[in-house]
Amino acid sequence: MNLDINNLDIANAKAIAQAVQTGKISALQVIRTTLEHIQAQNKQLNCFTAIATETALLDAERIDTEIAAGKNPGLLAGVPFAVKNLFDIQGLTTLAGAKINAENPIATQDATAIAKLKQAGAILVGALNMDEYAYGFVTENSHYGATHNPHDINRVAGGSSGGSAAAVAAGLVPLTLGSDTNGSIRVPAALCGVYGFKPTYGRLSRAGVALFSSSFDHIGTFARSVEDTAIAFDILQGYDERDPICTTRPIVETRNFASLNHIDGIKIAIAGDYFAQKAELEALEAVQKVANALNVKNHITIPEAHRARAAAFVITAVEGANLHFDKLRDRSQDFDPATRDRFLAGALIPSQWYIQAQRFRRWYRDKVREIFTNVDVIIAPTTPITAPFIGQQTMVLDAEEILVRPYLGQFTQPLSFIGLPVLSVPIQTENTLPLGVQIIAAPYNEAKILQVAGLLEKMGVISASIAEN
Amino acid sequence: MNLDINNLDIANAKAIAQAVQTGKISALQVIRTTLEHIQAQNKQLNCFTAIATETALLDAERIDTEIAAGKNPGLLAGVPFAVKNLFDIQGLTTLAGAKINAENPIATQDATAIAKLKQAGAILVGALNMDEYAYGFVTENSHYGATHNPHDINRVAGGSSGGSAAAVAAGLVPLTLGSDTNGSIRVPAALCGVYGFKPTYGRLSRAGVALFSSSFDHIGTFARSVEDTAIAFDILQGYDERDPICTTRPIVETRNFASLNHIDGIKIAIAGDYFAQKAELEALEAVQKVANALNVKNHITIPEAHRARAAAFVITAVEGANLHFDKLRDRSQDFDPATRDRFLAGALIPSQWYIQAQRFRRWYRDKVREIFTNVDVIIAPTTPITAPFIGQQTMVLDAEEILVRPYLGQFTQPLSFIGLPVLSVPIQTENTLPLGVQIIAAPYNEAKILQVAGLLEKMGVISASIAEN
Repeated sequence: MNLDINNLDIANAKAIAQAVQTGKISALQVIRTTLEHIQAQNKQLNCFTAIATETALLDAERIDTEIAAGKNPGLLAGVPFAVKNLFDIQGLTTLAGAKINAENPIATQDATAIAKLKQAGAILVGALNMDEYAYGFVTENSHYGATHNPHDINRVAGGSSGGSAAAVAAGLVPLTLGSDTNGSIRVPAALCGVYGFKPTYGRLSRAGVALFSSSFDHIGTFARSVEDTAIAFDILQGYDERDPICTTRPIVETRNFASLNHIDGIKIAIAGDYFAQKAELEALEAVQKVANALNVKNHITIPEAHRARAAAFVITAVEGANLHFDKLRDRSQDFDPATRDRFLAGALIPSQWYIQAQRFRRWYRDKVREIFTNVDVIIAPTTPITAPFIGQQTMVLDAEEILVRPYLGQFTQPLSFIGLPVLSVPIQTENTLPLGVQIIAAPYNEAKILQVAGLLEKMGVISASIAEN
Repeated sequence: MNLDINNLDIANAKAIAQAVQTGKISALQVIRTTLEHIQAQNKQLNCFTAIATETALLDAERIDTEIAAGKNPGLLAGVPFAVKNLFDIQGLTTLAGAKINAENPIATQDATAIAKLKQAGAILVGALNMDEYAYGFVTENSHYGATHNPHDINRVAGGSSGGSAAAVAAGLVPLTLGSDTNGSIRVPAALCGVYGFKPTYGRLSRAGVALFSSSFDHIGTFARSVEDTAIAFDILQGYDERDPICTTRPIVETRNFASLNHIDGIKIAIAGDYFAQKAELEALEAVQKVANALNVKNHITIPEAHRARAAAFVITAVEGANLHFDKLRDRSQDFDPATRDRFLAGALIPSQWYIQAQRFRRWYRDKVREIFTNVDVIIAPTTPITAPFIGQQTMVLDAEEILVRPYLGQFTQPLSFIGLPVLSVPIQTENTLPLGVQIIAAPYNEAKILQVAGLLEKMGVISASIAEN
């Protein structure tokens, strides 16, 4: 692609950085155009809850000065990015989607993930909408409004990182950060048609990120290409003393794997049973399309995945309620009704359920590890359906009426439950709405996921859908 | 001491092993005499719930044959020992103090701790009484009867390892095993006047031991001397693949430290505030006696110890209830009334309390670790009172009526809560009933504890009280 300022909306981060590094385009031009696009489209989409106009322009000038001085500002020189509004941005109040949090003092320090992207030359342009306290799959936030799906503004963007997915899918920025507890990166990535990557639990620092359910919370990225996903992951990786759960394992750089032309030696299987049921046909067809392209016929069973989902529900509700307990007691009327009742229920769950869920989790983790002794990568649908309408409560599937919102996490929850790394890759469906397929690996095997996804992208089986304006 | 068969009841394990190794006395003589003592006294004391006559005699013969053949059967050659009846003994059903468990099949394998002691030449003579499922501080078991304190048979032996403490204090065996979740080794050791050692959480294998509250459960020893305690600890230490929480840290042998004549370089402090309140005067005097002997004047404060005790209560009740949940639902009438109601309450505790208790635990662990950057060993009372009467429900302290049973764990619970190694050392009080002082160190510093205790024993400040028959 010959990048110029007129096709910035479909350019990937790597192309922008190369254009900026080589002086073909200035960082200031990129940021000015980006801010114009955001101003023009955000009213309709409601992705952004804060736009960092002033600091973004200053940062762009600094990048351009560095380049003029012959320096290389980094792998993401001049690339605009934005973050779910639960990441601390120095000088702003971290909302985490909540009205109550708007009263908090401003953050005095950027979240580690933001700092790392900035060190690589990327330029922060704003904060993005989400479900309150990250508890939801739809980003229909009663305080800050619903985020609209760029492919059909009557539909949800998914959640809880809905703003992060929509901003990329709308062509506003090529890279955003989100968080995923039960599917909050993968679900909106699938519904918006972009790449959503949730690396292994503990792989990326959560320092400066408002938590939801600590033993499940991951951060990750939204991007328009596999290679951008790998570049951002490589920048974000590494031990961080600010985060006690951040792994001390050595970094495994992935971007060279993402650009390989083969997947020799990687054993792939399709997740059967639970992951092949209770889904719209097109969700299962998307998986089959990927399987066919990779010539994969082998099916495996992830045992008791339905229990894993149930246990994830229990633990999330309990840990989330504990985190917000004082506010639930004193100011429950100030919560979003969509999250309040689940938090209150979580506070009242008997400890017996919680302990049993945690015991099951250890059993399940060991069982899934056994599968990975024979298989490297597993593929499964990301969501069972394409994006539902904003406000839609139920749907009928297999003659059964189903609550839409929780159902969106059907296939993502059993995987984050044990911290597996997963990339949701975008596939176009017949009805023009996008869907996602999860590419799953054993803990710390992010490189294999990106290698498989990279090949699929080169084959043209998967690709991000950037909505036309 | 010149060991012969007539003073076996006051001999320590090391002396017995040396006499057996040198042929001064045969293992068979030791075991026959031991079995006679048990037969004679157990009716009154009710320490033993099973006596392994047949296997003990066979083992003794084997030890004697080995010695006759010039072999050395190990550090504990011919030493009789017994175990709390929650340790698996091959060929017996593991009761764990419960009526329901009497229906279980027999154990097919010895617990690791038993196997290790046997490998060192020790001879198992039986299983010992306890509170049902280790949930209590008094060993007044409604199924198997109360264990009586050898120093006053109208008083409790303490619990939950009451049989283990009483058997040593009565001179029946020089060494027993018990388990300690909130004080179940240290409390009965103190009330019976023997050494009770609970090493660091994870230091000794719990394989083949019925659990109570997994994140707190420790095993440990009762003995008549510091050196025996150290010898048994050295034998029991070491990684065990049968126990997933058993540490892989290298063994630090302690028995040479236990026999040093100095404590040079070990910084000792007295636990003040919480640990110096709400106790009978003689419990505080016991601590002062130890402090004076060691010339210790420094006081430290373990912060929020009262909350640590409360949090330990909550977690224990919840985890214990989870472990026995099916039985509580189906057969609650078959539980000991003394444990049933607490287990049922534990099953109903809101998860909010449990999570908050676990969060507090991490905070408290870090705070206590800070203390150990300045201090090596802390001393504190083991129990606030001497042994209460069997059946005694309440007592008056500082003009306040107090429930006796839970109160026995006042000073032990805040320490096991974070897995610290603690030795309860025996001190005689004015009123002839014994008491204990806890010698506490940072995790994995068992050697320092035994060095301090060894010196105190040599100075005559502490000593086991073996009851006269």
